[in-house]
Amino acid sequence: MATITQNSFLSSNHLQLFKPNSKTKPIIAPTSVRMSLQETAPSIAVVGVTGAVGQEFLSVLSDRDFPYRSIKMLASKRSAGKQYTFQGHDYTVEELTEESFDGVDIALFSAGGSISKQFGPVAVNKGTIVVDNSSAFRMDENVPLVIPEVNPDAMKGIKVGTGKGALIANPNCSTIICLMAATPLHRRAKVLRMVVSTYQAASGAGAAAMEELELQTREVLDGKPPTCQIFKQQYAFNLFSHNAPVLENGYNEEEMKLVKETRKIWNDMNVKVTATCIRVPVMRAHAESINLQFENSLDEVIMSYSKQ
Amino acid sequence: MATITQNSFLSSNHLQLFKPNSKTKPIIAPTSVRMSLQETAPSIAVVGVTGAVGQEFLSVLSDRDFPYRSIKMLASKRSAGKQYTFQGHDYTVEELTEESFDGVDIALFSAGGSISKQFGPVAVNKGTIVVDNSSAFRMDENVPLVIPEVNPDAMKGIKVGTGKGALIANPNCSTIICLMAATPLHRRAKVLRMVVSTYQAASGAGAAAMEELELQTREVLDGKPPTCQIFKQQYAFNLFSHNAPVLENGYNEEEMKLVKETRKIWNDMNVKVTATCIRVPVMRAHAESINLQFENSLDEVIMSYSKQ
Repeated sequence: MATITQNSFLSSNHLQLFKPNSKTKPIIAPTSVRMSLQETAPSIAVVGVTGAVGQEFLSVLSDRDFPYRSIKMLASKRSAGKQYTFQGHDYTVEELTEESFDGVDIALFSAGGSISKQFGPVAVNKGTIVVDNSSAFRMDENVPLVIPEVNPDAMKGIKVGTGKGALIANPNCSTIICLMAATPLHRRAKVLRMVVSTYQAASGAGAAAMEELELQTREVLDGKPPTCQIFKQQYAFNLFSHNAPVLENGYNEEEMKLVKETRKIWNDMNVKVTATCIRVPVMRAHAESINLQFENSLDEVIMSYSKQ
Repeated sequence: MATITQNSFLSSNHLQLFKPNSKTKPIIAPTSVRMSLQETAPSIAVVGVTGAVGQEFLSVLSDRDFPYRSIKMLASKRSAGKQYTFQGHDYTVEELTEESFDGVDIALFSAGGSISKQFGPVAVNKGTIVVDNSSAFRMDENVPLVIPEVNPDAMKGIKVGTGKGALIANPNCSTIICLMAATPLHRRAKVLRMVVSTYQAASGAGAAAMEELELQTREVLDGKPPTCQIFKQQYAFNLFSHNAPVLENGYNEEEMKLVKETRKIWNDMNVKVTATCIRVPVMRAHAESINLQFENSLDEVIMSYSKQ
């Protein structure tokens, strides 16, 4: 099976994190007033709100009309004081501190693993449900690793409004894409072996990486040497093995995440997974080529679809 | 096993087919006089000399100091009359006709399948050994399909200087890259199953595709819609399934070439091969991720290398 999703660099109708011909700065796109602001809804905090994922959190909250009674925009001291308009209301970015989570029901974290490790447990102790985008707690056996469409049962004991805090980790981007496609087939015919090759965009490395890709592309087109600050090598018009550290077994960390996280999410320590993770010079949206070998025949599944 | 070769967009020391800040036109790079010109050496013709591969033929002849007594530069009527300097000598591009092959010992063809089909047999009848880069004859059971480093035996009956013409097909670029890496392992442990995902550059689609990638990149950076003449969709900062036609079985032609050509070159109709072929926005040099399953253990092979 091959799954390749196309990128929508120009047609992106979400946050225009890449804005040609300007200093690329995060912009809060959804300015229309929606009905998400509700007195009885949960209070939310976004940790790392100025980053690429933080901005995406806001975009998704808005797209889904996610109900909330208040929203706190948290970031490092450096970003504190920045002004954002979100759904018709003005917000000031606050510095993340231990007190930030007082009265917060749900905190969405994406400010790197060390911030999650430091402030995640603090938030949990204050009764906050933390959804963590970093790798800090993913392999912690006491923390559910959840793709809502795949294994929501893993977080079934966790409820908003009980005052009981909890950690929920979300997997690495490559794992999510892969298992969204593979799980329905796995449920029907049991995957024994999975070979994944990725085509990963700059966005996965954050807003600064996207800016560097744009800068480098302009430099290379002008015949200048590319500025390499985020990545160690030329990214414009180039490919390279994912920038995660290479481990002793020859795989990089990104590749091993796909192996370990798949086994945890599927609760199957025997499934054979191998991955080759590659950065491609694309702004947003990862793609993957996936080959699956099954225990049981898929003929019946294919037949049932062709009848529809 | 994962094989990813890095692209060398900027460091390309061959033909600068991609020249930033100028109309990209093929340039004959090697102007130094070498000792390749020899009275007793074969006469050569390059068919499709103005194309990206034609230029690469010249570059390789020069790099390898390939001996020749004369060289004919052949192309379509449209390109006839163009002037080139190669290894210190001036050449005029001639229109390809049936008479072009009189007295030619070796003809290197890369002007598309229909030109190969029309003029390949003509050249063979005149005693020329044709090395054809198109897919026209690859699956013809009477034509050897050769990667010199992999299966030179397939062309062992063919000799320059006997006056006897012959066709030799060279495989698709993806197959060559793949089998160069996989064959030494196949010989030791027998490949049963091969899963390939490609990262293919613009160069594989010719000089015009490279020009379009550059043009589109400039357009997208300027916030303009991309010009799509060579490909049907945006290529700058994007990926898409290889532009070869999609067949009834759901694979595109490029993917099926890898399957069929591997079986022919390895002379093994049972080897299981599957491929996902993707264009990435890179100027030159393809890359591939390859996963191999073997009949026999590779432990011994790995041991022998780790001892070295």
